[in-house]
Amino acid sequence: MNDKYPMFAARQSVEQVEEGTELAPKFDADGLMPVVTTAAEDGVVLMLGYMNREALAKTIETGEAHYYSRSRQTLWHKGATSGLVQKVIELRIDDDQDAVWLLVDVAGGASCHVGYRSCFYRSVPLGKAEGSPALKFEEQAKTFDPVEVYGDAPNPTKL
Amino acid sequence: MNDKYPMFAARQSVEQVEEGTELAPKFDADGLMPVVTTAAEDGVVLMLGYMNREALAKTIETGEAHYYSRSRQTLWHKGATSGLVQKVIELRIDDDQDAVWLLVDVAGGASCHVGYRSCFYRSVPLGKAEGSPALKFEEQAKTFDPVEVYGDAPNPTKL
Repeated sequence: MNDKYPMFAARQSVEQVEEGTELAPKFDADGLMPVVTTAAEDGVVLMLGYMNREALAKTIETGEAHYYSRSRQTLWHKGATSGLVQKVIELRIDDDQDAVWLLVDVAGGASCHVGYRSCFYRSVPLGKAEGSPALKFEEQAKTFDPVEVYGDAPNPTKL
Repeated sequence: MNDKYPMFAARQSVEQVEEGTELAPKFDADGLMPVVTTAAEDGVVLMLGYMNREALAKTIETGEAHYYSRSRQTLWHKGATSGLVQKVIELRIDDDQDAVWLLVDVAGGASCHVGYRSCFYRSVPLGKAEGSPALKFEEQAKTFDPVEVYGDAPNPTKL
């Protein structure tokens, strides 16, 4: 058991972690685990984020997606700025309990800071090719105007 | 451009990375990026894995999912041991190009080394609770017998 987070059990055996019913999550050296967020209605992957212990505990307790923002280095209640809150319909954890899958309903329908519904709005053509393959836009238009929603907040994308 | 991987463009601007059509992926300090793999047929998240440059290049070239195995520290052609090869139907990259989404068809239907179809076979009940919440199994039975398929290969789960 973790004193600060009594909902997290200590990891004691592979069998407990893989086949048991105790929540015994594993965070990486930075205290984070990756999170896949999909739309409950149609299975589209909206984003890939990260949670620390606090974010996972808050998400479970409140039923609203909380992440850890690596660019801002802080707890991030998704939608606090944009209004695009993610209501968690189901939360799943993987075999070795070091990754989470959130199935969500999104207020406003969009999750990507660029303005698209999904962060994964471009596909990569498959097959051998000369040089770099040209990405294809799979969403035809943005769902919202990021400048209107975020104003002059710093862009989280880093080169 | 990357001399060893001419399909990867150099990252030059946020606009290029987010709004452009060049594949300019970003790998973390360990040379990896996270990968979400979903079943093309119904959107179930099958697994969360990692790719290095070689794995991403091979996946694009061959149309079969390749990952980097962190436990074995080697390129991992998924299904090479188990036969559960993942045929990539679509490959997407996210806004800042540091995560991949694979939509796949799986030979044999399963992707989890424990024997379930999805690695995310347990859900976590939401809401405030005393102590640790009891995980709920969302898959009723294993799809295959891991001992038959993997024999005595070491279990990748680490405590």
